[in-house]
Amino acid sequence: MKTLIKNVTVLTVNKDNEIISNADVVIDGQIIAYAGPKKQWQEEFSQVIEGQGNMVMPGFVNAHCHAAMTLFRSYADDLPLMEWLEKKIFPTESRLQGEDVYWGTMLAIAEMLKSGTTTFADMYFFMDDVARAVEESGIRAVLSRGLTSTGNDGGEEGLRENEEFVKNWHGKADGRITAMLGPHAPYTCSVSFLQKVLAVREKLDVPLQIHLAETHDEVEQIQAQYGVSPVKHLKNAGLLESPVLAAHCVHLSTEDMEILQEYDVRIAHNPGSNLKLGSGIAPVPELLQRGVTVGLGTDGAASNNNLDMLEEMRLAALLHKGACLDATVISAEEALAMATRESARAVFLPKTGMISPGKKADLLLIDLQKVHLTPRHNPASLLVYAAQPSDIKMVMVDGKILCRDGELLTMDEEKIIYHAEKRAKHLLAGI
Amino acid sequence: MKTLIKNVTVLTVNKDNEIISNADVVIDGQIIAYAGPKKQWQEEFSQVIEGQGNMVMPGFVNAHCHAAMTLFRSYADDLPLMEWLEKKIFPTESRLQGEDVYWGTMLAIAEMLKSGTTTFADMYFFMDDVARAVEESGIRAVLSRGLTSTGNDGGEEGLRENEEFVKNWHGKADGRITAMLGPHAPYTCSVSFLQKVLAVREKLDVPLQIHLAETHDEVEQIQAQYGVSPVKHLKNAGLLESPVLAAHCVHLSTEDMEILQEYDVRIAHNPGSNLKLGSGIAPVPELLQRGVTVGLGTDGAASNNNLDMLEEMRLAALLHKGACLDATVISAEEALAMATRESARAVFLPKTGMISPGKKADLLLIDLQKVHLTPRHNPASLLVYAAQPSDIKMVMVDGKILCRDGELLTMDEEKIIYHAEKRAKHLLAGI
Repeated sequence: MKTLIKNVTVLTVNKDNEIISNADVVIDGQIIAYAGPKKQWQEEFSQVIEGQGNMVMPGFVNAHCHAAMTLFRSYADDLPLMEWLEKKIFPTESRLQGEDVYWGTMLAIAEMLKSGTTTFADMYFFMDDVARAVEESGIRAVLSRGLTSTGNDGGEEGLRENEEFVKNWHGKADGRITAMLGPHAPYTCSVSFLQKVLAVREKLDVPLQIHLAETHDEVEQIQAQYGVSPVKHLKNAGLLESPVLAAHCVHLSTEDMEILQEYDVRIAHNPGSNLKLGSGIAPVPELLQRGVTVGLGTDGAASNNNLDMLEEMRLAALLHKGACLDATVISAEEALAMATRESARAVFLPKTGMISPGKKADLLLIDLQKVHLTPRHNPASLLVYAAQPSDIKMVMVDGKILCRDGELLTMDEEKIIYHAEKRAKHLLAGI
Repeated sequence: MKTLIKNVTVLTVNKDNEIISNADVVIDGQIIAYAGPKKQWQEEFSQVIEGQGNMVMPGFVNAHCHAAMTLFRSYADDLPLMEWLEKKIFPTESRLQGEDVYWGTMLAIAEMLKSGTTTFADMYFFMDDVARAVEESGIRAVLSRGLTSTGNDGGEEGLRENEEFVKNWHGKADGRITAMLGPHAPYTCSVSFLQKVLAVREKLDVPLQIHLAETHDEVEQIQAQYGVSPVKHLKNAGLLESPVLAAHCVHLSTEDMEILQEYDVRIAHNPGSNLKLGSGIAPVPELLQRGVTVGLGTDGAASNNNLDMLEEMRLAALLHKGACLDATVISAEEALAMATRESARAVFLPKTGMISPGKKADLLLIDLQKVHLTPRHNPASLLVYAAQPSDIKMVMVDGKILCRDGELLTMDEEKIIYHAEKRAKHLLAGI
């Protein structure tokens, strides 16, 4: 299967943020074979896509999500964090079953594909059901089971599940699924449990996903309990010697940032969720200045309430300018890189997130012939500050077209809406 | 002409933020005649719209815009404010002609209608051309010419133009156009010029539009020049005795807020522009607590870079939670009211912005059958935190349908894109 997209503008999002006009892109199987000036091709292609007036860019990589939480979208908003968690989310989550998670994840994947996300990192429960949804839909995902030591068995069962999951699913679905271990957060995992997670990690050689320094309360709690910041606590526990994807990182001291930099910790910045839950504004401009890898995530739809990476990218570009009173921080190009190339690096998938020969063919075709994308002085700026999900004409993952003109080709939207609505109603009945 | 929309959920956005399920809405001419529980209607309707699975809500009121600046969209981003203004925007604006403003405004109106805006407040030049675009398109608008005393003639010519404009256009286009006077800002209008503006205002009895306390620099400059804050300066100049729509109001002291409250100054909050230009974060929760009328605006597309009120509404709901570290400030219902009812009040059009008998029929039909709007626990929350422009099925202004399923019925999109692109290229040639 060889595809040619011709006469297109390419936002490569490579290190030089190169933009190629009048370009051709060739996809050979699952791989981008060519992206450069247009050519007279002698060979035959299985399909040729006319790209005039369109733009090719890497698919978005959502670096932090709890996909199945779409079931709680619009269920409990504008509440204080602890009330939201303890009175609304935790009681409902405790009733979740595998089929709920399956349909919630299907709903999430449908939304993500339609808004241009080609990879997502997930931490949740019933991960076999999540993996099943990923396998069926054709999207790429980095999956971990959320692990805490607060339960009756000190977290043993969850850790065993996560280990089994890694063994069963890492590298499966044509390589579209990679697995991680998911210790939930410093405040839900005891030090001795973290040591057990680390021992399993050594055996399996996969990275870790964790929530870190999300709220001011967390910082205070860890400080009271261990006498250090959450970041330093993880360092002291030996966790940062492993590859780590840390979500949030909102409340950081200068020393924390030095540690994150020294240990090359990968960060998932979630501006929408951090704002909505009143958590705060992460010091992203300073992290970027230090060369820390910062990707972008939506977090779950219960705290966002959508999985639209275009919006997350725009928020990242806007928010820090206002918070720093400086219109030059996080340019459109930087925000675009965070949502694609840097997110790919953050979730340890360096073969994605860029339009470049040899990379995985995870890409989008954007229709620029729209009033809100006129005039076209600067494609990156248009994309970051003005584009909408409905501008996405085509979504390709691993060389396969999964969405065309807003229509999903591997998923049945009506069926997904029906089951998700039914599952959500059932879950919340009597709460 | 009598229209029935049946079996629909109505977000009234009245004072109680009432939501009516299984409702009917009747539009008689330009006016909403009924919005309540569904009925067995005996009378004949000119058109009946099935609303099952859809939601009726008031159209958005964009309380601050410079519509024709769409021509500069994506032209100059991520620059320091003064460099952006002095090196990029002012030199280009000085070359503008009436036809540029006409096509730039047509482009803006097309974008606004497609994203659900039914009224916009504008301050710019060549206002006859702006009014022509408003008249042709069918949108509602509140128009003023931007006035400064920094030119050679101390602003006389502009003021004369604005006066003529009010006389010619106020109440025209079936009442869809209202006019204001537009003294630009405290730092661009001398006190003696403001007095002249006030004298003309007395004669014409229209409100004023002004930019106020947008940046920290402005506050410093006015403080240095007059020894008081910009808000107090306007009070001292006697301006606040008149009805005033003040855009931005980012940098306010407690005394400033007391003055704005005392004089019932109407505020247009522009979170996107304030972030993008690095201006800062307005103290909106405190203004709302004081009962000040705060509407929402996009500002021009050069500093946003889009005119999508859904995004502006979402930003208003998210931003202040994060800045205040409090998830309860500016609920979805409050943000929705700001974008509709309160914006209408801010631009002195209290007959719009609400779905209620006797109000103008400026309304939207939203399609809720989307994956990103599933499940449907709370319509207001879905709309504010998750809806997209492409969810808008129908846009009605003054009882006339102007946009259906994303297609404009009174405007030629292709022609507008062609002319706007051409005008923009021409304007920037050689700069």
